[in-house]
Amino acid sequence: MPHAAINLDAKFAEFTDTWSPKVVARLNDYEIKLVHLNGEFVWHTHEDTDELFLVLDGELTIRLRAGDVMVGPGEMFVVPRGVEHCPVTSGEVRAMLIEPVGVVNTGDAGGVRTAGYDDSLA
Amino acid sequence: MPHAAINLDAKFAEFTDTWSPKVVARLNDYEIKLVHLNGEFVWHTHEDTDELFLVLDGELTIRLRAGDVMVGPGEMFVVPRGVEHCPVTSGEVRAMLIEPVGVVNTGDAGGVRTAGYDDSLA
Repeated sequence: MPHAAINLDAKFAEFTDTWSPKVVARLNDYEIKLVHLNGEFVWHTHEDTDELFLVLDGELTIRLRAGDVMVGPGEMFVVPRGVEHCPVTSGEVRAMLIEPVGVVNTGDAGGVRTAGYDDSLA
Repeated sequence: MPHAAINLDAKFAEFTDTWSPKVVARLNDYEIKLVHLNGEFVWHTHEDTDELFLVLDGELTIRLRAGDVMVGPGEMFVVPRGVEHCPVTSGEVRAMLIEPVGVVNTGDAGGVRTAGYDDSLA
Protein backbone atom coordinates (compact mmCIF):
# COMPACT_ATOMS: atom_id res chain seq x y z
CA MET A 1 0.00 0.00 0.00
CA PRO A 2 1.54 3.31 -1.04
CA HIS A 3 1.68 5.98 1.61
CA ALA A 4 1.42 9.46 0.18
CA ALA A 5 -0.41 12.64 1.06
CA ILE A 6 -3.49 13.63 -0.89
CA ASN A 7 -3.10 17.04 -2.52
CA LEU A 8 -6.52 18.68 -2.61
CA ASP A 9 -5.75 21.05 -5.50
CA ALA A 10 -4.54 18.13 -7.60
CA LYS A 11 -7.74 16.21 -6.88
CA PHE A 12 -9.92 19.19 -7.73
CA ALA A 13 -8.10 19.49 -11.06
CA GLU A 14 -9.33 16.04 -12.01
CA PHE A 15 -13.00 16.91 -12.32
CA THR A 16 -15.21 19.86 -13.15
CA ASP A 17 -18.79 18.75 -12.61
CA THR A 18 -20.68 20.53 -9.85
CA TRP A 19 -22.77 19.17 -6.99
CA SER A 20 -21.24 15.74 -7.50
CA PRO A 21 -19.03 14.84 -4.51
CA LYS A 22 -15.98 12.69 -5.19
CA VAL A 23 -14.64 10.42 -2.47
CA VAL A 24 -10.89 11.02 -2.03
CA ALA A 25 -10.24 9.19 1.22
CA ARG A 26 -11.85 7.06 3.86
CA LEU A 27 -11.63 7.46 7.63
CA ASN A 28 -13.03 4.37 9.32
CA ASP A 29 -16.69 4.37 8.28
CA TYR A 30 -16.60 7.97 7.07
CA GLU A 31 -15.69 9.40 3.70
CA ILE A 32 -13.82 12.55 2.76
CA LYS A 33 -15.31 14.04 -0.38
CA LEU A 34 -14.40 17.00 -2.57
CA VAL A 35 -17.03 18.90 -4.48
CA HIS A 36 -17.32 21.85 -6.84
CA LEU A 37 -20.36 23.96 -5.99
CA ASN A 38 -21.86 26.64 -8.20
CA GLY A 39 -25.38 28.02 -8.09
CA GLU A 40 -28.27 26.77 -6.02
CA PHE A 41 -28.83 23.23 -4.80
CA VAL A 42 -32.05 21.76 -3.39
CA TRP A 43 -33.47 21.89 0.11
CA HIS A 44 -32.89 18.56 1.80
CA THR A 45 -32.30 16.87 5.14
CA HIS A 46 -30.02 14.10 6.33
CA GLU A 47 -32.11 12.53 9.05
CA ASP A 48 -29.44 10.21 10.38
CA THR A 49 -26.23 12.20 10.31
CA ASP A 50 -24.47 15.50 10.73
CA GLU A 51 -22.66 16.78 7.64
CA LEU A 52 -19.43 18.77 7.66
CA PHE A 53 -18.71 21.45 5.06
CA LEU A 54 -15.19 22.89 4.91
CA VAL A 55 -14.81 25.63 2.31
CA LEU A 56 -11.44 25.75 0.57
CA ASP A 57 -12.19 28.44 -2.04
CA GLY A 58 -15.11 30.76 -2.66
CA GLU A 59 -18.10 31.78 -0.61
CA LEU A 60 -20.79 29.29 0.32
CA THR A 61 -24.14 30.15 1.82
CA ILE A 62 -25.85 27.33 3.66
CA ARG A 63 -29.49 28.28 3.90
CA LEU A 64 -31.26 26.96 6.97
CA ARG A 65 -34.89 27.55 7.89
CA ALA A 66 -33.47 29.46 10.90
CA GLY A 67 -31.34 31.73 8.69
CA ASP A 68 -28.34 31.74 6.40
CA VAL A 69 -24.84 30.63 7.40
CA MET A 70 -22.02 32.21 5.40
CA VAL A 71 -19.00 29.94 5.03
CA GLY A 72 -15.89 31.43 3.43
CA PRO A 73 -12.42 30.04 2.68
CA GLY A 74 -10.87 28.47 5.75
CA GLU A 75 -14.23 28.17 7.43
CA MET A 76 -16.34 25.15 8.26
CA PHE A 77 -19.85 24.40 9.38
CA VAL A 78 -21.48 21.21 10.60
CA VAL A 79 -25.11 20.92 9.56
CA PRO A 80 -26.75 18.99 12.43
CA ARG A 81 -28.66 15.85 11.59
CA GLY A 82 -32.28 16.48 10.80
CA VAL A 83 -31.77 20.15 9.94
CA GLU A 84 -33.08 21.07 6.51
CA HIS A 85 -30.56 23.00 4.46
CA CYS A 86 -29.90 24.30 0.97
CA PRO A 87 -26.37 25.19 -0.20
CA VAL A 88 -26.16 28.20 -2.51
CA THR A 89 -23.26 30.03 -4.11
CA SER A 90 -22.93 33.03 -6.39
CA GLY A 91 -19.81 31.59 -8.04
CA GLU A 92 -17.38 28.72 -7.95
CA VAL A 93 -16.82 27.13 -4.55
CA ARG A 94 -14.53 24.27 -3.67
CA ALA A 95 -15.52 22.40 -0.56
CA MET A 96 -14.67 19.30 1.42
CA LEU A 97 -17.51 17.22 2.82
CA ILE A 98 -17.13 14.67 5.59
CA GLU A 99 -19.93 12.27 6.40
CA PRO A 100 -20.57 8.58 6.95
CA VAL A 101 -20.25 6.15 4.06
CA GLY A 102 -23.43 6.00 2.05
CA VAL A 103 -24.78 9.50 2.55
CA VAL A 104 -26.42 10.80 -0.62
CA ASN A 105 -26.06 14.47 -1.56
CA THR A 106 -29.78 15.17 -1.80
CA GLY A 107 -30.63 13.41 1.46
CA ASP A 108 -34.35 12.83 1.83
CA ALA A 109 -35.21 15.00 -1.18
CA GLY A 110 -33.93 12.74 -3.93
CA GLY A 111 -34.64 13.85 -7.48
CA VAL A 112 -32.56 14.70 -10.50
CA ARG A 113 -29.78 16.41 -8.52
CA THR A 114 -28.90 13.14 -6.78
CA ALA A 115 -25.29 12.29 -7.62
CA GLY A 116 -24.04 8.79 -8.20
CA TYR A 117 -21.43 7.35 -5.88
CA ASP A 118 -17.96 8.17 -7.21
CA ASP A 119 -14.79 7.01 -5.50
CA SER A 120 -12.69 6.95 -8.65
CA LEU A 121 -10.37 9.57 -7.13
CA ALA A 122 -9.83 7.69 -3.88
CA MET B 1 -28.66 27.43 19.09
CA PRO B 2 -26.59 29.91 17.08
CA HIS B 3 -25.66 28.89 13.58
CA ALA B 4 -22.36 30.33 12.44
CA ALA B 5 -19.34 29.11 10.55
CA ILE B 6 -16.15 28.27 12.40
CA ASN B 7 -13.20 30.32 11.19
CA LEU B 8 -10.09 28.21 11.54
CA ASP B 9 -7.63 31.12 11.68
CA ALA B 10 -9.64 32.71 14.46
CA LYS B 11 -9.62 29.47 16.42
CA PHE B 12 -5.85 29.03 15.97
CA ALA B 13 -5.35 32.55 17.30
CA GLU B 14 -6.88 31.50 20.60
CA PHE B 15 -4.09 29.16 21.67
CA THR B 16 -0.37 28.68 21.22
CA ASP B 17 0.54 25.43 22.94
CA THR B 18 1.84 22.67 20.69
CA TRP B 19 0.85 18.99 20.44
CA SER B 20 -2.33 19.71 22.36
CA PRO B 21 -5.35 19.28 20.07
CA LYS B 22 -8.36 21.51 20.72
CA VAL B 23 -11.83 20.29 19.80
CA VAL B 24 -13.61 22.92 17.68
CA ALA B 25 -16.58 20.95 16.40
CA ARG B 26 -18.31 17.63 16.62
CA LEU B 27 -19.57 15.50 13.74
CA ASN B 28 -21.78 12.71 15.11
CA ASP B 29 -19.37 10.65 17.21
CA TYR B 30 -16.29 12.28 15.71
CA GLU B 31 -14.41 15.40 16.72
CA ILE B 32 -12.72 18.06 14.64
CA LYS B 33 -9.58 19.26 16.38
CA LEU B 34 -7.05 21.96 15.62
CA VAL B 35 -3.45 21.62 16.71
CA HIS B 36 -0.19 23.54 16.53
CA LEU B 37 2.71 21.20 15.81
CA ASN B 38 6.38 22.07 16.17
CA GLY B 39 9.28 19.70 16.59
CA GLU B 40 9.12 15.96 17.10
CA PHE B 41 6.33 14.00 18.73
CA VAL B 42 6.46 10.40 19.97
CA TRP B 43 5.96 7.15 18.09
CA HIS B 44 2.53 5.79 18.83
CA THR B 45 -0.35 3.75 17.43
CA HIS B 46 -4.11 4.10 17.50
CA GLU B 47 -5.18 0.47 17.48
CA ASP B 48 -8.88 1.12 17.02
CA THR B 49 -9.12 3.99 14.59
CA ASP B 50 -7.80 5.73 11.53
CA GLU B 51 -6.63 9.33 12.09
CA LEU B 52 -6.94 12.14 9.58
CA PHE B 53 -4.32 14.90 9.34
CA LEU B 54 -5.12 17.93 7.17
CA VAL B 55 -2.28 20.45 7.04
CA LEU B 56 -3.36 24.08 6.83
CA ASP B 57 0.06 25.77 7.16
CA GLY B 58 3.61 24.48 7.24
CA GLU B 59 5.21 21.18 6.37
CA LEU B 60 4.47 18.06 8.36
CA THR B 61 6.35 14.81 8.11
CA ILE B 62 4.47 11.76 9.32
CA ARG B 63 7.08 9.11 9.95
CA LEU B 64 5.87 5.57 9.42
CA ARG B 65 7.93 2.42 9.81
CA ALA B 66 7.41 1.99 6.04
CA GLY B 67 8.80 5.46 5.27
CA ASP B 68 8.05 9.14 5.64
CA VAL B 69 4.93 10.85 4.33
CA MET B 70 5.34 14.57 3.59
CA VAL B 71 2.15 16.55 4.10
CA GLY B 72 2.18 20.20 3.04
CA PRO B 73 -0.45 22.95 3.09
CA GLY B 74 -3.65 21.81 1.41
CA GLU B 75 -2.70 18.18 1.76
CA MET B 76 -4.11 15.44 3.93
CA PHE B 77 -3.18 11.96 5.01
CA VAL B 78 -5.13 9.29 6.84
CA VAL B 79 -2.97 7.17 9.13
CA PRO B 80 -4.61 3.74 9.06
CA ARG B 81 -5.59 2.17 12.34
CA GLY B 82 -2.83 0.09 13.86
CA VAL B 83 -0.06 1.83 11.93
CA GLU B 84 2.68 3.21 14.14
CA HIS B 85 3.52 6.82 13.34
CA CYS B 86 5.47 9.80 14.60
CA PRO B 87 4.67 13.34 13.46
CA VAL B 88 7.68 15.61 13.02
CA THR B 89 8.07 19.18 11.83
CA SER B 90 11.00 21.52 11.34
CA GLY B 91 8.88 24.57 12.14
CA GLU B 92 5.39 25.71 12.96
CA VAL B 93 2.57 23.62 11.46
CA ARG B 94 -1.15 24.15 11.80
CA ALA B 95 -3.19 21.03 11.28
CA MET B 96 -6.73 19.75 11.59
CA LEU B 97 -7.27 16.30 13.06
CA ILE B 98 -10.43 14.27 12.67
CA GLU B 99 -11.01 11.16 14.73
CA PRO B 100 -13.62 9.53 16.94
CA VAL B 101 -14.47 11.07 20.30
CA GLY B 102 -12.07 9.95 22.99
CA VAL B 103 -8.92 9.39 20.94
CA VAL B 104 -5.84 10.45 22.87
CA ASN B 105 -2.95 12.11 21.05
CA THR B 106 -0.31 9.65 22.20
CA GLY B 107 -2.40 6.56 21.44
CA ASP B 108 -0.94 3.44 23.01
CA ALA B 109 2.29 5.18 23.98
CA GLY B 110 0.98 7.38 26.77
CA GLY B 111 3.56 9.33 28.72
CA VAL B 112 4.24 12.98 29.40
CA ARG B 113 3.21 14.17 25.93
CA THR B 114 -0.37 13.00 26.49
CA ALA B 115 -2.65 16.03 26.19
CA GLY B 116 -5.71 16.58 28.31
CA TYR B 117 -9.09 16.73 26.65
CA ASP B 118 -9.87 20.33 25.68
CA ASP B 119 -13.12 21.35 24.06
CA SER B 120 -13.10 24.89 25.40
CA LEU B 121 -13.00 26.22 21.80
CA ALA B 122 -15.95 24.17 20.60
